[in-house]
Amino acid sequence: MRPTSLLHPSLARQIAATIGTPAYVYSQPALEQHAAAALAFPNAFGITVRFAMKALPNAAILRLFHKLNLHFDASSTHEAYRAIRAGIPSAKISISTQELSPDFIELLRMGVLVNACSLAQLAAIGQHFPGLQIGIRLNPGTGSGSTGKTNVGGPDASFGIWHEYLDDAIAIAHHNHLQIIRLHTHIGSGSDPLVWQHAALQSLALVRRIPTIHTLNLGGGYKVARTESEHATDLQNVGTPIKTAIQDFAAQTNRQLHLEIEPGTFLTANSGVILTRIQDITDTGTHGRRFLKLDSGMTELLRPPLYGAQHPVEIVPATPSPTDTSAASTSCTRHPYIIVGHCCESGDLLTCAPGEPDTLAPRELPIAHIGDLCLIGGAGAYCSSMSAKNYNSFPEAPEILVTADNSALLIRRRQTLDQIVENEILPNPPPA
Amino acid sequence: MRPTSLLHPSLARQIAATIGTPAYVYSQPALEQHAAAALAFPNAFGITVRFAMKALPNAAILRLFHKLNLHFDASSTHEAYRAIRAGIPSAKISISTQELSPDFIELLRMGVLVNACSLAQLAAIGQHFPGLQIGIRLNPGTGSGSTGKTNVGGPDASFGIWHEYLDDAIAIAHHNHLQIIRLHTHIGSGSDPLVWQHAALQSLALVRRIPTIHTLNLGGGYKVARTESEHATDLQNVGTPIKTAIQDFAAQTNRQLHLEIEPGTFLTANSGVILTRIQDITDTGTHGRRFLKLDSGMTELLRPPLYGAQHPVEIVPATPSPTDTSAASTSCTRHPYIIVGHCCESGDLLTCAPGEPDTLAPRELPIAHIGDLCLIGGAGAYCSSMSAKNYNSFPEAPEILVTADNSALLIRRRQTLDQIVENEILPNPPPA
Repeated sequence: MRPTSLLHPSLARQIAATIGTPAYVYSQPALEQHAAAALAFPNAFGITVRFAMKALPNAAILRLFHKLNLHFDASSTHEAYRAIRAGIPSAKISISTQELSPDFIELLRMGVLVNACSLAQLAAIGQHFPGLQIGIRLNPGTGSGSTGKTNVGGPDASFGIWHEYLDDAIAIAHHNHLQIIRLHTHIGSGSDPLVWQHAALQSLALVRRIPTIHTLNLGGGYKVARTESEHATDLQNVGTPIKTAIQDFAAQTNRQLHLEIEPGTFLTANSGVILTRIQDITDTGTHGRRFLKLDSGMTELLRPPLYGAQHPVEIVPATPSPTDTSAASTSCTRHPYIIVGHCCESGDLLTCAPGEPDTLAPRELPIAHIGDLCLIGGAGAYCSSMSAKNYNSFPEAPEILVTADNSALLIRRRQTLDQIVENEILPNPPPA
Repeated sequence: MRPTSLLHPSLARQIAATIGTPAYVYSQPALEQHAAAALAFPNAFGITVRFAMKALPNAAILRLFHKLNLHFDASSTHEAYRAIRAGIPSAKISISTQELSPDFIELLRMGVLVNACSLAQLAAIGQHFPGLQIGIRLNPGTGSGSTGKTNVGGPDASFGIWHEYLDDAIAIAHHNHLQIIRLHTHIGSGSDPLVWQHAALQSLALVRRIPTIHTLNLGGGYKVARTESEHATDLQNVGTPIKTAIQDFAAQTNRQLHLEIEPGTFLTANSGVILTRIQDITDTGTHGRRFLKLDSGMTELLRPPLYGAQHPVEIVPATPSPTDTSAASTSCTRHPYIIVGHCCESGDLLTCAPGEPDTLAPRELPIAHIGDLCLIGGAGAYCSSMSAKNYNSFPEAPEILVTADNSALLIRRRQTLDQIVENEILPNPPPA
């Protein structure tokens, strides 16, 4: 995805001049388009698309997705409260969490749904809500990762109830008169339709053992291509074998399963960019490197330092050239640049090698100047929500939603220093 | 460092009961002891110890270090303002930053010191403050990292002015009547005295070319041993050859250089623990893993997911055993546990292999129970200041300072959900 395809250079300059940099900028048309694609996921007997709100939990985004008929997956009780605070009806929120804090009781009383993700969670829910209809999240025993690596499915994953304990789960539910109506089996499967088909068949074998289940939730994990070399999940491709499996299941059992999916990245990653400014350019001599230093970094975008993630970048000259008043920099002369962040941290590197956060990987870019803007693409998911916020005391960046008519709506103000320290308490007297 | 040597189990239980978990807990006696050790760094003609405040910028910690006669290194203009807000005299604050924001002008007017870290920074300072006495940060051409990896020194590092451009720096300074009185050459050298000696000699060769320099700043990077297998920097060992080199330099040039160091980790890492609670325990069958799930994770401690960093952990039973009212769990039976965080994120793993964030590395620990406390050691530096704060909408954790008489002073309140979203703006009407 070319960042300027989401944020036109002239609007980028306008936002930089009015709201400043760095800033997250989301495209409402792109969000709407991705929501429509998710809602078109192949299904036999109906589908619910739950936005994995941890990807981008801004209230304005939640309201937009609500208007588009999405439901919501909350990864913590805090997130469920956050969705309610944004005006989302509690019945459209489902909690699947590693930590079911005691305030789940209040949330369930308000009508929020829950998937028990461990036997202890199941027992706690049963203790407070005997008779409730609930979901359970199972670890079906396989994931897409290799042995010894963490994953969201398989023996090395801590997510969900291990499939061998299904009888224990049924017993706990029975003891508390809980009715298990949903099965959740997110395994983070990536883009291979065969893996999805395998996961769906595995899940249906589990569904068969619990006659009260009417909804199958396959979670998220649909990959997107942030850069040209990445491979995106085609929802039609991965969904079709699942649809067939659910139809076959219905033919065999007379049970018409409702399908749920929980995309986060798919809905938002390629709907957002980070608008930054090049605030310095340095080099380490003839045989060294040439560095572009942004007024942003791991404080807004942690994915490269954390995963070695690849994000496309485009330079937008500070002032449009006389011959082309709108375009990104298209100068023919290109230089290999290393792009670094503003933190005093050697790992604050944007242009790393794929999967290798510490390895410098120069990007060929048009000649850049101090003051030029730099747009970072693929930045709508797990960027504003998962960053090394406030490191080096940099304030949290603002968020902007650009509508179809190119209006830039501020949906989050830039944090102030006073807010960064607002919870600090000074026990000792001021220094002399 | 055993976490319970900093935070006694009985006090851990008391803090958990009153302030709650997770929480950062710092030991004032440990902070004082590390400050004394830093101030004893070998020196020939005086030393200034600047706390690299990005490691732990809480105002109460800054005031404590100020009382102990430390000065401060700010990694951004925001940090300099934060120190001033905490009551630190501006003359005791020095800025060395990757991004010299325009508000540096106000800070320098207030008397804050600055080290120009690029030629562009030097020119900007000269433009606004002709005649000022300043420092420059040079990249002396070598670092401690291998080729192709980022580091804070050498051709792959973006920090400081490349040594080959020293003449350009001198020319810019001359043009603006700036007087260069400090040289900063942090190279992140680790614990090898030979590397330090080499760096000091390299730096002195650069000092020789600028007669106005009276202070040499060697930065930080002094390693500590968080776990038993790690090797700590002995400040006396690395400092002695530097002292000798500065004495030799004085004999040759009649210039008695003042020394500055900028420790962050050394002062605080082993002065703090994270107090967490085990909120769930799950497993993946007989041949699988056993997981301890904390009510904390990458939201408070990003170093394992980011670096594969190793932190010691100790289990403190929820209630003291009848025979031993104070100790950490010392049960003879031990189990290999995987400790994971509370985020819905496969990488939220505390017990990873060294340098391999994704590889599960079980820890042998006494049998743990849901509700037990888990203390994470080595958590005083780059933990509260560098975390995936608010991911999954978890609130920022509180900070506590434990004094010599075992008083637990709250120095930062737990964040509220209202504060997390306080800067959000809703442009669209509430959903129907």
